[in-house]
Order: sequence, then structure tokens, then C-alpha cells
Amino acid sequence: MIGPGDIEAAAAVLEGVAHRTPVVTSRTLDERVGAHAFVKAECLQRTGSFKFRGAYNKIASLSEDERGRGVVAFSSGNHAQAVALAARLLGAGATIVMPADAPALKLAATRGYGAEVVTYDRYTEDREAIAAALVKERGLTLVPPFEDPLVMAGQGTAALELIEEAGSLDLFLAPVSGGGLMAGCATIVKARCPNARVVGVEPEASDDTRRSLAAGERVTLPDVPRTIADALQLRAPGVATFEVNRRLLEGVVTVSDAELVDTMRFAFERMKLVGEAGGVAALAALVAGHVEVEPGSRVGVIVSGGNVGADRFAELVLEK
Amino acid sequence: MIGPGDIEAAAAVLEGVAHRTPVVTSRTLDERVGAHAFVKAECLQRTGSFKFRGAYNKIASLSEDERGRGVVAFSSGNHAQAVALAARLLGAGATIVMPADAPALKLAATRGYGAEVVTYDRYTEDREAIAAALVKERGLTLVPPFEDPLVMAGQGTAALELIEEAGSLDLFLAPVSGGGLMAGCATIVKARCPNARVVGVEPEASDDTRRSLAAGERVTLPDVPRTIADALQLRAPGVATFEVNRRLLEGVVTVSDAELVDTMRFAFERMKLVGEAGGVAALAALVAGHVEVEPGSRVGVIVSGGNVGADRFAELVLEK
Repeated sequence: MIGPGDIEAAAAVLEGVAHRTPVVTSRTLDERVGAHAFVKAECLQRTGSFKFRGAYNKIASLSEDERGRGVVAFSSGNHAQAVALAARLLGAGATIVMPADAPALKLAATRGYGAEVVTYDRYTEDREAIAAALVKERGLTLVPPFEDPLVMAGQGTAALELIEEAGSLDLFLAPVSGGGLMAGCATIVKARCPNARVVGVEPEASDDTRRSLAAGERVTLPDVPRTIADALQLRAPGVATFEVNRRLLEGVVTVSDAELVDTMRFAFERMKLVGEAGGVAALAALVAGHVEVEPGSRVGVIVSGGNVGADRFAELVLEK
Repeated sequence: MIGPGDIEAAAAVLEGVAHRTPVVTSRTLDERVGAHAFVKAECLQRTGSFKFRGAYNKIASLSEDERGRGVVAFSSGNHAQAVALAARLLGAGATIVMPADAPALKLAATRGYGAEVVTYDRYTEDREAIAAALVKERGLTLVPPFEDPLVMAGQGTAALELIEEAGSLDLFLAPVSGGGLMAGCATIVKARCPNARVVGVEPEASDDTRRSLAAGERVTLPDVPRTIADALQLRAPGVATFEVNRRLLEGVVTVSDAELVDTMRFAFERMKLVGEAGGVAALAALVAGHVEVEPGSRVGVIVSGGNVGADRFAELVLEK
């Protein structure tokens, strides 16, 4: 388990390395929601998503010997880029196991950071097994995408910065995939703003954490969910992250792919933010009215990533 | 004329009102240019462009009586929204004279800020005459888009903040339309970094300041220039702004519409910035290699606005 001190320690590690991303406000958004929304723009984080925070915090903790042997990660994209850059900054080699159908921009960016990319078939192969084999064969250290206290703590620094800039919150919203971002953020939000409600957001097709909370235990979806939110395409929450989130979350709400596209447009036109589909999930829940919001209250929202190609964005907004 | 003290005074007026917009860096950009680029993201300014700075600084200087009668402005869009919001914040009514073919997003946003919009035909009618009539008939105060020392000084605060955050610059690039942004910025850049080169950027079809510098006097283009950079569609530089810019600028370079679209894509994918065509002109000149850059030098760039609809952005990037 992690506590607020772990997030504060991660903030010290990330000081001067991770970007202190802007907190963006919008009169249009506030009027639509009837509250004060503070949007933490992690799309403007290094590598285009919050994932850099956790990856750097983890790799910074490794011994010189471990860094010398190198690190490995599996990821649908954003964690890949994050590990690639963090490893490079810390002098470690990086091998990344990525789905062959990951967005071209994410594959290219990961290679661009100097990492070796090993691809696999998202629908038939087991990425964890591939990564485990690399750990064994090459002596690499695994940087898990969420199942690690240092990774969770690193991600939580996004919420810590948000509170430091926006002040106390009444409601906090973030997307949930493996649950690492939410576990880290919920830990610090509940410590700093004990009365704040914390609500997670998932795509309708990828609601494993929502189902798990309802069941009181981890539920695994039968198939890999099909959603435009490639960063949130996961079948089950993490073990450690779910332990944190089941205690701290009021619940999880879901958003449709159409609402994600509407919100990508809203973020672009009204807030001048580039958000990928999964990245705007929490904002989408707010804009679409899926979360109960106390009038005049203070709402913190994480826009978690902006790694979407211009062509893909164009196709999505014109299709609708 | 204006001096650096005017920009410093404007910064005090804007403190806590205008956003202190982020300065964005990009490894990809730096590698491409062979220098350190610091991009001031004025697309994240209130109303989506730097224009809020000058409009607020000007309206804040008016007497209570003048504010009570209200203000008027003519604008292709960004100045319109800026005056509308600044007037609202300062308790003044606003009437805005806008071209009927201005982007729908800009017309809607201006009305959304509570202003009265009067439209005209950009190719046949004289917007200055229409505004002058409103000044006479209704006792309104004109908020000029650039021909005003308080407006120029307000715009210059963008460069002041950039220098405060990025440190000393060797080269400064900004788009030039009427020249108010550049006049204010050049004044403070030359005061704080006396050896810095200051270069303006215009669309190929709208190179009135480039021609004016070459001729040594203000040149008026025969026709309204046709370019996708609607914010930079002007036939002649201002009188006062040209007096400042002719003394401080090394020169003006031009960029094609195709280069503007390439750079909108680059800003979106690589920097997660929403830039309108005119807004990315200075970045386009840098990316396309139209400006000589000393290897390893420090380059300040203004991305001046992000008011482009998602559909328009999508059409532009898919057409190419």
C-alpha cells in the first residue's frame, strides 16, 4: 500500500525533471457544469502523458547495477514512451513490448526515445509473459505500468500539483485503466482534502474497475474491450491498485466512445488542449453530466494524455 | 513610441488577470532546429490568443465614464474576443465590428462573451469607417487592434514573461499582422537582451511588413491577401507599430500556407498545442528553416493563438 508520504517523496524525485503541467480553467466548462473545474493538462507532460511521472520515479530508485542491465516494460503506448525517456534520462537501456496495432505515433515516439521495441498481437499474445521472458533471459528490471508502489506514487504527483495550484477540491475525477494514476491520486487527494469525493471514469466497453467495485472483487472482462480509448483497453484492474481504489473511490462512471470524441473536440476548441480519447475520459464524464456535481463546488480533473495523431483526430471529429 | 517601462507597467495591470501561459519545449523541435527553442503558448491565453493582454491593458486605463459609455473594436476575430472579455471583466459594454466570413467559432465566442457583433463584408466595406461611425453616434471608445501604445505594451508582456521564464534569448520570432504584438515584444526583448536578433514572420500572400521594411516606408498591398491565416490578413502595417518595428527588427521572413498546415500538425502532435494558422506562423518559419539559427542558441517563439475549429483543423490536415 502507499500513503501520502510516498507521493510527496515522488514529487521531490520529479522536481525539475517532470513538467509542472498547467491547470487550465474554462468559463464555458464552468457554466456547463455549474461548478469550478480545474483541469490538470497532463497532455503537456513530457512524452505526452502522466506516465512519465511513475516511470521516472521507479527507474530513479534502481541501483546503478540494475540500470546498467536495463529495464523492460509492456504498454499500449504511453507507458512505453514514458519508460523509454525516463530510462534514457537515467542512463538505462530500455526494451518495450508494444501491441503491433498501437497508434503509429506512439510506436515511432518510443523508438525515437532510443528504446528497442518488441511487438506482439494484442488479441492473441500475452504481453506479460513476453516481458517476463525478457527479464529472465537478459536480466532486465520490469517497470510495471501500474502494479508498483513507486509507479503509483509517481502518478499521484499529478493530483498533488493540482491541489497545490487549485486549492482544496470537493470532487476529483481521473480516468481508470490499470488504476495506477487513480490509486496515486486518490491517496493524496484523500489525505489533503478528506471530504473530497473521488470518482473514476472508464469507457463503457472497458468497465472492469466499475464491475470490480460492484462485485467487491477484481472482475476480468471476457474479451479485450473494443474502444477508441486505446490507453484504457484493459481487461482487469491491478491487484494492488484495486486494493487502494476500492477503499478510496466513491465509484466509477462510464462514457461512450461518442462522448469521448465530443470531448476531444470540446478540449480542442474551448480549452486549446490536445487530448487523446482515453486522456479526456474524466473530462467527458463531467461534460456529459455523468457525475453528480454540487453547484459551485471545486472539481479537479485529470486530462491524462494527448498522444493522438492529427489524422486520427481529424477522422474522429469529422466522422461524427 | 513605447519603452520597456510601458511593458513592465502593463505586466502589473495584467497580474492575476491574464494567464501566465506556459513556455513549452520539445526535444524533437530542438533536434530539428539545432538550437534551444522556447515556445510561449499564447493559444492557452484567455480568449485563445495574446490579444487579451493589449485589450485589457487599454480598457483598464479608461475612466469610469468612458467605460460606462462602452467600447468598440473592429477585428477579424481574436481582438474581438479579447475586447469582449476584457470589457466584461472591467464592467464596460462592447460592440465589435467583425467580417461576416470570420470563422464561426470566433463569431460565436465573441457573442458568448456578451458583446454586440456588427458584421461587414471584408472585401468591399471599410471596417474602420464603420467603427468610427459608432464612436461618433454612441460615444463609444475605440480599442484599436494595434495602433495604440497601451495595446502594444500589453502584447509585449508575452515576451516579458517568456524571457522571465526561459532566460536570455539570442533570437526572437513572432507573427506580424498589424505589428502590435511584435512592436511590444521587440521593445522588451531588445531592452532585456540587447544582442538578440528579432525577426517577424508573415504569410507569403500577406507580406506587407516585409515589403514595407524593404521599401523603408509603409507599403499597402493592392488586395486583401488570401491566406488560411485569417488572423494575419492585413493590407498594411500600422503607422506607430511600423515606426517601432522598422527600428528593432532584423527583418521579416514569410511562410506558405502549406507550411502553416504542416506546423499546425507539428504543434498538435509533437507539442500538444492547438495553434491556428496565423498563430503558428513564427513556429513555421523556424521548423521550415526560413530563419538562420546559430547552432545551440536560445530561440524564443510566440505561438500567438489557437482559435481554430476542430472541423477546420481536420479539413486542413487531411487535405494535405
